Amino acid sequence: MESSGTTETSAERGAFTRDTNYIGTRITADGRDGYPVEPGRYRLVAARACPWANRTLIVRRLLGLEDALSLGLCGPTHDERSWTFDLDPGEVDPVLGIHFLRDAYLARFPDYPRGITVPAIVDVPTGQVVTNDYAQMTLDFTTEWTAHHRPGAPELYPDALRDEIDEVNRLVYSEVNNGVYRCGFAGGQAAYEAAYDRLFTALDQLSERLSRRRYLVGDAITEADVRLFTTLVRFDAVYHGHFKCNRQKLAELPVLWAYARDLFQTPGFGDTVDFAQIKTHYYVVHSGINPTGIVPKGPDLSGWHTPHGREALGGRPFGDGTPPGPPPAPELVPGG
Amino acid sequence: MESSGTTETSAERGAFTRDTNYIGTRITADGRDGYPVEPGRYRLVAARACPWANRTLIVRRLLGLEDALSLGLCGPTHDERSWTFDLDPGEVDPVLGIHFLRDAYLARFPDYPRGITVPAIVDVPTGQVVTNDYAQMTLDFTTEWTAHHRPGAPELYPDALRDEIDEVNRLVYSEVNNGVYRCGFAGGQAAYEAAYDRLFTALDQLSERLSRRRYLVGDAITEADVRLFTTLVRFDAVYHGHFKCNRQKLAELPVLWAYARDLFQTPGFGDTVDFAQIKTHYYVVHSGINPTGIVPKGPDLSGWHTPHGREALGGRPFGDGTPPGPPPAPELVPGG
Repeated sequence: MESSGTTETSAERGAFTRDTNYIGTRITADGRDGYPVEPGRYRLVAARACPWANRTLIVRRLLGLEDALSLGLCGPTHDERSWTFDLDPGEVDPVLGIHFLRDAYLARFPDYPRGITVPAIVDVPTGQVVTNDYAQMTLDFTTEWTAHHRPGAPELYPDALRDEIDEVNRLVYSEVNNGVYRCGFAGGQAAYEAAYDRLFTALDQLSERLSRRRYLVGDAITEADVRLFTTLVRFDAVYHGHFKCNRQKLAELPVLWAYARDLFQTPGFGDTVDFAQIKTHYYVVHSGINPTGIVPKGPDLSGWHTPHGREALGGRPFGDGTPPGPPPAPELVPGG
Repeated sequence: MESSGTTETSAERGAFTRDTNYIGTRITADGRDGYPVEPGRYRLVAARACPWANRTLIVRRLLGLEDALSLGLCGPTHDERSWTFDLDPGEVDPVLGIHFLRDAYLARFPDYPRGITVPAIVDVPTGQVVTNDYAQMTLDFTTEWTAHHRPGAPELYPDALRDEIDEVNRLVYSEVNNGVYRCGFAGGQAAYEAAYDRLFTALDQLSERLSRRRYLVGDAITEADVRLFTTLVRFDAVYHGHFKCNRQKLAELPVLWAYARDLFQTPGFGDTVDFAQIKTHYYVVHSGINPTGIVPKGPDLSGWHTPHGREALGGRPFGDGTPPGPPPAPELVPGG
């Protein structure tokens, strides 16, 4: 995400408010918005740095959508204009033929007024962005792209659990996913302290919930776990120091730390995570809170690979399904 | 310390170099520099925020010099001009009658060219600074002010151990006390990373040394422990995040964390520490690395009071001496 060019701090109260206005067009099985699910037609544009885009990388992996939906990856840093394909040869996406992701937005909306965000899905034939609505995107991978799921794909949003998943997602979004940003981008001491209290209150609640069950909802991994994971995996590397979310490190919160390691070690989660890009993104892009642009060398990440002991809580990671195989070679995270 | 008005980053290599040029006048038993030890004559000016000043607060407490050497305390923040007595009624030190510590420097050296630093000792009758040489100051408390030590004062710099203490002090100063600043004020990524490696190499060496012995030198607390403690006690509250010393928190380095807690819980150490002032100082004064001026609410400090288990290593904290009593009421740290 990381919308650029917007004022992210309301002067009134010093509280950070997120622009939640996204392009709501959906790619569906029935094509009712003009964009039917079709293998090979669309390109998911993500950035490994971005927690909101990370959701799509994980769900695409878990469901085995790699062959049906190709992936373009923007580099970790960007200026106020746009995320860019600066990791590709010639700094141009080989499929879309563009350097600035912005160009795909402008191809559809010449006067697009909001920030250029990842994840986005681009219609390859026209080069036009279809959607950047990250919250709907992963749900549609699960419910609309079913014809292209791999054999053994897990049920990430099962009918019987949707209400509970939605409820957990609301808490996780407002208090955790966005809660860390509310700390980091607070415009004053009081707004920051209120944000810090909200965040750790929610983390304490989630610790309590996860002390008795392996996953957030039901007995298998769901969309809810994906959404909590992407914030937790960034916590010690970025949010703890950069956003001053420092009551404890994740590594000092035993339940959440074990839960996060369990997911990290599950195929489809940790293999999407690039800590170097994550750190570079936040510490370089947010010059307002890190004017030196120096990226911390820590934390020591070896703990992510240590035993988590969560099997003792039961649960079946993929329910009746199976784990995904390894990522396609071009999508391997360097050093990951 | 925190000398103001100096360029703290050498453009050449991006490496931080500290101005180590201090006023070398000494207060001695024989008065050879014109300033004999004399109870009631001098005022120690410190700030609880400052690690270099914190040494003097601890040694003065351990030796029981409170009645012989009065204490003025500057507040945690200052501008480029001077530390100030902004905690006192009317923001004026009740003994020296000044607001800016600078005035005591200028009273002796009208063209004083360097930063105005704490700790400093001021000659009360003339209002003139005598010395700001923090490294010599605590040694002189120990070796020159002996006539005014309390009964049971420990031997912080015993003759037989001076060479070893000096050697440890050199390492601790260059690699740890100053090492954290070298990380925080590095002018570029390469200088920062080199500083980070030096710091944690030294902390690993010290962990190894302290895994087998309770104190750094000999079997009792010495000057060497005082000097290491003042950096360790600030580590998680400030250096870990603000200076990007983030391979681990102190709380994740078991030996050093237990060692630091042991000292913290020893009379004369923890009772000189004001975490609120420490955090405010660094996060407010260093606007170049924390432009928002927001002070982190964390970390949770309750761990400082947990059992440390270091008694099992033997050692006698005060050697043949005794612990100091509680601090005089006017010197109690709020909430401490």
